[in-house]
Amino acid sequence: MALTVPEGYRILDEGGLPGWLAAIPNVPERLGGDPSGWRVREVGDGNLNLVFLVEGTRGTVCVKQALPYLRLVGEGWPLGLQRAWFEHRHAAVVGPHVKGLIPEPLHYDERLYALVMERLSPHIILRRGLIQGVRYPHLADHMATFLAGSLFRTSDLALPAKPKRLLTAEFSGNWELCGLTEAVIFTEPYMVHPNNRWTSPQLDATAAKVRADSAWKLAAARLKLKFLASPEALIHGDLHTGSIMVTPEDTRVIDPEFAFMGPMGFDLGALLGNLWLNYFAQDGHATPESPRADYQDWVLETAEAVWTLFRERFLALWRGGATGDAYPAAHYTDAEGVRLMEAERQAYMDRLFADALGFAGAKITRRILGIAHNIDLEWIEDADLRALCETRCLTLARRLMVEPGAFRDVGAVSAACRSIRASVARIGL
Amino acid sequence: MALTVPEGYRILDEGGLPGWLAAIPNVPERLGGDPSGWRVREVGDGNLNLVFLVEGTRGTVCVKQALPYLRLVGEGWPLGLQRAWFEHRHAAVVGPHVKGLIPEPLHYDERLYALVMERLSPHIILRRGLIQGVRYPHLADHMATFLAGSLFRTSDLALPAKPKRLLTAEFSGNWELCGLTEAVIFTEPYMVHPNNRWTSPQLDATAAKVRADSAWKLAAARLKLKFLASPEALIHGDLHTGSIMVTPEDTRVIDPEFAFMGPMGFDLGALLGNLWLNYFAQDGHATPESPRADYQDWVLETAEAVWTLFRERFLALWRGGATGDAYPAAHYTDAEGVRLMEAERQAYMDRLFADALGFAGAKITRRILGIAHNIDLEWIEDADLRALCETRCLTLARRLMVEPGAFRDVGAVSAACRSIRASVARIGL
Repeated sequence: MALTVPEGYRILDEGGLPGWLAAIPNVPERLGGDPSGWRVREVGDGNLNLVFLVEGTRGTVCVKQALPYLRLVGEGWPLGLQRAWFEHRHAAVVGPHVKGLIPEPLHYDERLYALVMERLSPHIILRRGLIQGVRYPHLADHMATFLAGSLFRTSDLALPAKPKRLLTAEFSGNWELCGLTEAVIFTEPYMVHPNNRWTSPQLDATAAKVRADSAWKLAAARLKLKFLASPEALIHGDLHTGSIMVTPEDTRVIDPEFAFMGPMGFDLGALLGNLWLNYFAQDGHATPESPRADYQDWVLETAEAVWTLFRERFLALWRGGATGDAYPAAHYTDAEGVRLMEAERQAYMDRLFADALGFAGAKITRRILGIAHNIDLEWIEDADLRALCETRCLTLARRLMVEPGAFRDVGAVSAACRSIRASVARIGL
Repeated sequence: MALTVPEGYRILDEGGLPGWLAAIPNVPERLGGDPSGWRVREVGDGNLNLVFLVEGTRGTVCVKQALPYLRLVGEGWPLGLQRAWFEHRHAAVVGPHVKGLIPEPLHYDERLYALVMERLSPHIILRRGLIQGVRYPHLADHMATFLAGSLFRTSDLALPAKPKRLLTAEFSGNWELCGLTEAVIFTEPYMVHPNNRWTSPQLDATAAKVRADSAWKLAAARLKLKFLASPEALIHGDLHTGSIMVTPEDTRVIDPEFAFMGPMGFDLGALLGNLWLNYFAQDGHATPESPRADYQDWVLETAEAVWTLFRERFLALWRGGATGDAYPAAHYTDAEGVRLMEAERQAYMDRLFADALGFAGAKITRRILGIAHNIDLEWIEDADLRALCETRCLTLARRLMVEPGAFRDVGAVSAACRSIRASVARIGL
């Protein structure tokens, strides 16, 4: 299928890359040596892009180029190139507030829809580390800082109305990737759709049950409406454990091409939901040599710490820097005002927590019944065992989506995870 | 003070108007006769624009031009001309859904920021009719139709996500007029600000009390946050009783230059709040020859009917035409699904009702303590009587803003109005 692409666009390849990079300011110096000696490897394992790692005599860079179609499906699913622009813009807007927690951006090419950035090494994708049972002692700390900084600083609590409205306008242009999320997360898993797949036949009846569960579907629709019309902050838009690269010491958030002005709970829920999914998936990876009970505790503790530290930091930013047009600080200076304003902040965080839980449930559900699955579960070879883990995931997901208010704090979610793992011993809801 | 204006912009005047109109397609035919014989009168009594009425031998038109400053204050308060564009665009987007309830648009001039439209005659501004005690038997019916059509059809319930996001992006460009609302409605009345005025000295202590009332100020801030970040639908943005022109038979909504993608409750609250304000103001206009008790009942009944009919019609549109990306209709077709979806709709309307009450309270408060006052109250010459009416307005406004959930339906607001009128007999909160 021939796709129309903008003039000047061409798909980069390993052979042509050095010549192109050689003309970009500062990049040749960073790589070192002669371009003819630079080693190039295409390593993209995502769904949407080409990713090249380039190595010179002195250093390395990473190049990411948007393809004009959804790579997972092929050229039959065309996808606008402008998502690369929104990835570039997300890094530009959020970067100053999350210092050191994203790869350093080096260059953006408007014609090729290509980004040049710091190459992360020896980082691996967090999801892979979690599957291996590796602990990341700073992960919760770093991610809480990333979430609090990026979300607070681009919200009405920190930004005056004009730049906030202009950001909303700009990122509304990312409607195409938003549309993907709307379809594959909030809609398709709850209906008969050719994109869907699941562990079959084990979960056939379960998938049918979900499609007939009006309360669950309405919860998904309520979350979708929030996704459609809640420009609370500039969100990453795809913040699962595959969008985070880690070493035991360092954490970097990558791939913000789904960024737009949306509900903060969507980013929080993406991370938390993927951690809880991983918790249940561990039972498919435990072996006598690598028992996972302690590690499962660590996963739950990490999820708890992400929320708890996020809440603390977001509140600290708010108390110290309410520079936006919402809740003008000067209005609440007497004792009663200070008390009520603090109660308002706590209520805001409680509402955000409920949002995060709902979105977490939606993110879990789509990974089991929708188009895109997680290796946390996919790598469990025993289909019965996988289906059991998935049943537990779905049990939690439904509760998170339908009754988020039943969880009084993040510890209650950990307790539910443990209880579901202990009590759900049969495949199928 | 010299203001910079875009190239090609000039302020229209009565002398130059016929020559300009003569070159616009269809307008000379509509007016009839020779342009030299067209009669032109400037009648703008608003705050932002020039308004000309032009009469030919056959017909008439109305011309509205944006001025590069806030007319109420003068050239010291510059204001972007592009609001005329948004007025034009609001009519274009909403027009097809509110047939016959706005003036027919005839022409838009991009260089002059001027609109040519149907001249309404013998319509008068609704607010003036209400002050005179005139009944408008179709008003509630027409306004419910306008509100349901314009709000439903531009919401996620009716629009697919892409056009909805693009509308949001486009109208985010109206940030300047949104900023006016944010300042003069949600912020300034709750602080010491040179723009504010009130009936003084009668309400001096009351204004100070409001400024010290943290619960009230937080309610205002909560509503402001909703105004900043809830692109639910394309709202008119200034839908008070001065933005509606009426005859006993006809109703037209004018002046949508504040239009943007915002919370539906803001439009509903503007109309309801101004009706409730008028209810209390009637006591300043009653005379032995023109007692107003029956008319006050009519005003309350009209407010009730606006909400009740709006709710009915919005729900009917939703049940019959959920063509948007929110709540995909195909998901809720079995008996349980139909039942839960209907409960979801009712909950949506209850939430919208609470929003409307809150915004109504904010709209009342700003008319008494802020920069722009209403002739409903201003025309009460006896300052003590005016301050008493205003005290009653503020008593209602605080309840609407701080405890909207305490009103189980719109009849409960009417009851509160009657009870406040009967019990509040002294000036000052």
